Amino acid sequence: MNKQPPYYAVIFTSIASEEQEGYATMASKMEMLAANQPGYLGMEHAREEVGITISYWESLEAIAAWKAVLEHQEAQRLGRERWYQQYTTKICKVERVFSFEKD
Amino acid sequence: MNKQPPYYAVIFTSIASEEQEGYATMASKMEMLAANQPGYLGMEHAREEVGITISYWESLEAIAAWKAVLEHQEAQRLGRERWYQQYTTKICKVERVFSFEKD
Repeated sequence: MNKQPPYYAVIFTSIASEEQEGYATMASKMEMLAANQPGYLGMEHAREEVGITISYWESLEAIAAWKAVLEHQEAQRLGRERWYQQYTTKICKVERVFSFEKD
Repeated sequence: MNKQPPYYAVIFTSIASEEQEGYATMASKMEMLAANQPGYLGMEHAREEVGITISYWESLEAIAAWKAVLEHQEAQRLGRERWYQQYTTKICKVERVFSFEKD
């Protein structure tokens, strides 16, 4: 992802509940769906004690449109009902970016 | 971390190099040192294929001061030299936060 700032990041941090049936399938389905949304820039994910998923977007409008997609709303509902003990979503404006890559 | 936005997030994503000797010790040392910095709000971390560390700060000034701390500068240097194949640091303004917690 080589977009120059400013752009937006959605930081989604979560603690999983004990019920995880159907989660992995839904997560990869949502990742594909998000990738086809207008204004989508990329996604990064890692999980240890806490799960962190960061998606990157061109604008707040792109984020709002993705939040409103019907299949995504259903995934959010199932997430609250089944897969997450708790979660926090932070909407952020990416202001500066520095990168390092070893030769 | 219950600070109301706006505040700042530093998203640090990395790919580890093959050399990891000394990394874990340095990482926990830096986490303790950061936690004692003025304006520090919290930290979240997870690693799978990619490592994601997000630290939260009251202001850009607090982030700049932490970046300039001598021990942290030395850790950054060692990170480039030894522990990271690549990394990206994104400075973000957290604008909105939504939380969910199961009953």
